[in-house]
Amino acid sequence: MRPILTEAELSRFLAETFPQVRDDFSVERLTPDGIVLRLKVGERHLRPGGTVSGPTLFGLADVAFYFALMSRIGLEALAVTTNVAMDFLRKPMPDADLLGEARILKIGRHLAAGDVLIRSEGQEEVVARAGLTFSIPPQKPAVAVG
Amino acid sequence: MRPILTEAELSRFLAETFPQVRDDFSVERLTPDGIVLRLKVGERHLRPGGTVSGPTLFGLADVAFYFALMSRIGLEALAVTTNVAMDFLRKPMPDADLLGEARILKIGRHLAAGDVLIRSEGQEEVVARAGLTFSIPPQKPAVAVG
Amino acid sequence: MRPILTEAELSRFLAETFPQVRDDFSVERLTPDGIVLRLKVGERHLRPGGTVSGPTLFGLADVAFYFALMSRIGLEALAVTTNVAMDFLRKPMPDADLLGEARILKIGRHLAAGDVLIRSEGQEEVVARAGLTFSIPPQKPAVAVG
Amino acid sequence: MRPILTEAELSRFLAETFPQVRDDFSVERLTPDGIVLRLKVGERHLRPGGTVSGPTLFGLADVAFYFALMSRIGLEALAVTTNVAMDFLRKPMPDADLLGEARILKIGRHLAAGDVLIRSEGQEEVVARAGLTFSIPPQKPAVAVG
Repeated sequence: MRPILTEAELSRFLAETFPQVRDDFSVERLTPDGIVLRLKVGERHLRPGGTVSGPTLFGLADVAFYFALMSRIGLEALAVTTNVAMDFLRKPMPDADLLGEARILKIGRHLAAGDVLIRSEGQEEVVARAGLTFSIPPQKPAVAVG
Repeated sequence: MRPILTEAELSRFLAETFPQVRDDFSVERLTPDGIVLRLKVGERHLRPGGTVSGPTLFGLADVAFYFALMSRIGLEALAVTTNVAMDFLRKPMPDADLLGEARILKIGRHLAAGDVLIRSEGQEEVVARAGLTFSIPPQKPAVAVG
Repeated sequence: MRPILTEAELSRFLAETFPQVRDDFSVERLTPDGIVLRLKVGERHLRPGGTVSGPTLFGLADVAFYFALMSRIGLEALAVTTNVAMDFLRKPMPDADLLGEARILKIGRHLAAGDVLIRSEGQEEVVARAGLTFSIPPQKPAVAVG
Repeated sequence: MRPILTEAELSRFLAETFPQVRDDFSVERLTPDGIVLRLKVGERHLRPGGTVSGPTLFGLADVAFYFALMSRIGLEALAVTTNVAMDFLRKPMPDADLLGEARILKIGRHLAAGDVLIRSEGQEEVVARAGLTFSIPPQKPAVAVG
């Protein structure tokens, strides 16, 4: 399960394909079994009290695992979230970005599975943990031309 | 576990306390074991392809169960999401609101648990299903005055 | 998703195919969206203190959803548990059988999903709740003979 | 979260307090953030086809996290499983013991959370993954004597 894409290729894919979230996320680094994705925390991610909202943490876990998967199976592949089990353990630090560390545990023919740990940057303690399963639908066959 | 608040009281609480989401959600109705919450689907909930995004579905499940709980234990209570296990089963209908039907299965001293079914309005098929656990921290004692 | 098997056919399948658990479980009844399975609680299911053990509750949820699925897709089909998210809400009653009510929410080409509520017989309160996903591998083609 | 018990103390606790499972499990080693527990796979753990059963894998995850927790908070403490989200990724190897590696992510006042990876001994690939939450009920106060 070594990456077949570079960090630069993933960053370009993020910027071009997901314009609506490219201001939220950036590819921090590839790891031996996945990826670290940064959430650039801003006002729009907070709920009253100054905490990062649950949906934002969910989105970080979901996108981190998606990019970990893309880095191994390629950008042409399809992958759809089918299951997320998430534990919310501690409040994130105020005024700190969040790092989501995605680890791939299996890439099968139809399913991929793994988990994500979310921490405030510079902290050891885990803010949230997610186990995720993605479905990998078969590719539509290319249309034969000519 | 009968409700101690009316739909009107819950709606007012939603509008006053959560200004950032009051344009997203409305209280549809109280049910014998929970609540139905409406997500007024708009452009900002969609991702490329026109599907409602995963974080938006997560948010609907989370807020629906939160309001179901508030309707039973009162608006002064605290309640914090600790665990959400969510299955994404089908794409929502385009151009339809989503209804989240929250069912409370237990309200204990420290924990409450239940589940949420999400459907596109007017459809029988379930778009997503979530099991949720909330922590109910003890109330801060009121400050004695005078 | 109407059943294609009778309760008698499912009971015979249980007795013939799973001799190691046929003394534990019996088919209680088919329901419009699933099945109710009975766990005949005995000494071997208890842990110290007289409570039914966690693995036994897990097994009840798993087998109940498996039989719900078989009743809809037929006994020749393959189905393998891929994900179970389970909440343990209350202690079961001592000296009472447990009923697992399985509800199918989706049967797709590769995946089926649903949930199970477990109650002590005669009680309204829910002992445990599980959300489950099963993988449905493609059938091996029948061997052509002759 | 350093252990306050030795491996020998945990093994003695296992043998004395859980006679019904002491032939199934043994304490393999303490780790910086948890424990590794061995399941001594035998005939009684298998289902038709020779695979270790789902309830047995669930039990390994549950007991591994329980012992990880006990090793940090002490044998007098109470701890009850409240939530397990488990992914079944691959068939275990036949004729090999299973090792459950439990990692504690949080020990709070009322809740503890973490995860468990299960592998066949000697294999790198993960057979199953579980995220778990345990409730830690307050201790009953000691009875004052005299």
